[in-house]
Amino acid sequence: MSAPASLRCRALATARVAVVGLGLMGGSLAAALKARGACAHVIGVARRLAVASRALALGYVDEATTDLARGVASADIVILAAPVRAILQVLPDVGPLLAPGTLLLDLGSTKARIAEAMAALPGHVHACPAHPICGKETSGLEAAEATLYEGRTFALCPLARTPPEALALAEALARAVGARPLRLDPARHDRLLAVSSHLPYLLAVALAAEAGEAGQEDSLLVDLAAGGYRDTSRLAASSVPMMLDVLMTNPAAIARALAGCRARLAELEALLEGGDEAALRASLEAAAALRRDLARRSQASPAGRTPPCTSQ
Amino acid sequence: MSAPASLRCRALATARVAVVGLGLMGGSLAAALKARGACAHVIGVARRLAVASRALALGYVDEATTDLARGVASADIVILAAPVRAILQVLPDVGPLLAPGTLLLDLGSTKARIAEAMAALPGHVHACPAHPICGKETSGLEAAEATLYEGRTFALCPLARTPPEALALAEALARAVGARPLRLDPARHDRLLAVSSHLPYLLAVALAAEAGEAGQEDSLLVDLAAGGYRDTSRLAASSVPMMLDVLMTNPAAIARALAGCRARLAELEALLEGGDEAALRASLEAAAALRRDLARRSQASPAGRTPPCTSQ
Repeated sequence: MSAPASLRCRALATARVAVVGLGLMGGSLAAALKARGACAHVIGVARRLAVASRALALGYVDEATTDLARGVASADIVILAAPVRAILQVLPDVGPLLAPGTLLLDLGSTKARIAEAMAALPGHVHACPAHPICGKETSGLEAAEATLYEGRTFALCPLARTPPEALALAEALARAVGARPLRLDPARHDRLLAVSSHLPYLLAVALAAEAGEAGQEDSLLVDLAAGGYRDTSRLAASSVPMMLDVLMTNPAAIARALAGCRARLAELEALLEGGDEAALRASLEAAAALRRDLARRSQASPAGRTPPCTSQ
Repeated sequence: MSAPASLRCRALATARVAVVGLGLMGGSLAAALKARGACAHVIGVARRLAVASRALALGYVDEATTDLARGVASADIVILAAPVRAILQVLPDVGPLLAPGTLLLDLGSTKARIAEAMAALPGHVHACPAHPICGKETSGLEAAEATLYEGRTFALCPLARTPPEALALAEALARAVGARPLRLDPARHDRLLAVSSHLPYLLAVALAAEAGEAGQEDSLLVDLAAGGYRDTSRLAASSVPMMLDVLMTNPAAIARALAGCRARLAELEALLEGGDEAALRASLEAAAALRRDLARRSQASPAGRTPPCTSQ
């Protein structure tokens, strides 16, 4: 591998940024960069012409194209905003298209597989796997909003080969859209997200399936389902292609979290069937305390009180 | 059993209503009756003097007392608003305190055990088990709001002995606070709520426990838990005494729902570990469709579009 090229551009304010993929995450990132005047120029790259045109019409980008090579050729920073396996698929093609010293980020929901693939990119590209923690269960450009990243954690999983100044530029970009950069390694990211995000999704899926079947057997179920059901099952409406990519690229950690959760449910079931009220109370109280504690610390953590904009 | 006494009062507008228990549900019901001028007089009964005084100060009741006998003696309608087993405990004492022809309702979250206990009340009391489907994960009088019942389903599970005019008065009361009365038998209520409410609660408990443990092992979890985790685990913060009463009075249906859900999770886990993407996709798509379908029917159901007030 040749000596690493120096960054094309060290200051976000003067950078040309290409966002590849203009769905919820990419569209929101482009919109946030534009709305905050965080960089010099935003180029949107979409597969479909209608989406590219729409992003331009909404003012989320300065120019838009369906031509990947043209979109990224003149960019100082390129951000891949697509489901994980779409990123994995496009990465080998994108590398050679980038000018020396380009910073390449992605916004995929799992990081270990992407980190592996990015480590194999040509040496003239400075790549850093990233994941802003701010999904919604809606998707697509129409769901995008410039405020999506505000106050959110923006995970960055630098490779061994990522130069410090490339990481610094990635952090500046995260801060520029109101997020709080957080460095951690890809395996740790995937292990924690399995519990905090992928497990909740599968619990919502199981609940939606169980309630859906009960609702087909007895149509009154719909009248008796209130906010509790709605919130707990909300994630089941997430984009299936996106979540399938998440599951297929983080199966071991997710299976572990699922097994742990099933064991807890089996224990609750046994306590219920055995009428062991004291043990049941202790379990419910412990869970309530943990839920309140995490909610409290989540509000108190820096991610919860990042000022709207600290662009550097 | 003597011939049933006729109702003390057939018109809600002229009725004296006693609400026993001034927490979230009782406090909100009293507040709604007062705010809408739905009845002649609202009496609040609380165990603690501070709560009784506070309800009076907030204008949720016309008078307040900590003396159960005095509170219910002159009432035409008495509503027990407490956790299920507190209702079961007070019922035998309340019956003899009521004037002939009093309508007695409760707002407990499970109905079979309460229906049994109400069937044993003296014949001069007209009792009807009830359950408005509108909890929150907060509790207590300070969480009460006059709008809590608006647009919600108000389940009524009349006993064989409940006279039609007593049921009609109960339905008028439900409509008067903006809710939509729905008649169904107690066993059916408990079977459906096991899936739509009690199962989501236990899933949230298991998730909070799993994430809580992961968060104790790795403190970064809190930075990586976003809206999906928050919503899916929200119910874990529900009042433990209230939920313990729910679980202990509906164990068989809840255990069945739990077992069904665990089987679905085990299947998802097996598909994940086997890398069976096609079957996994089919499961996720089916759950997403069921979730969207229930959300759509829930919005379209009459409960979702009840006018604010149709007091009769």
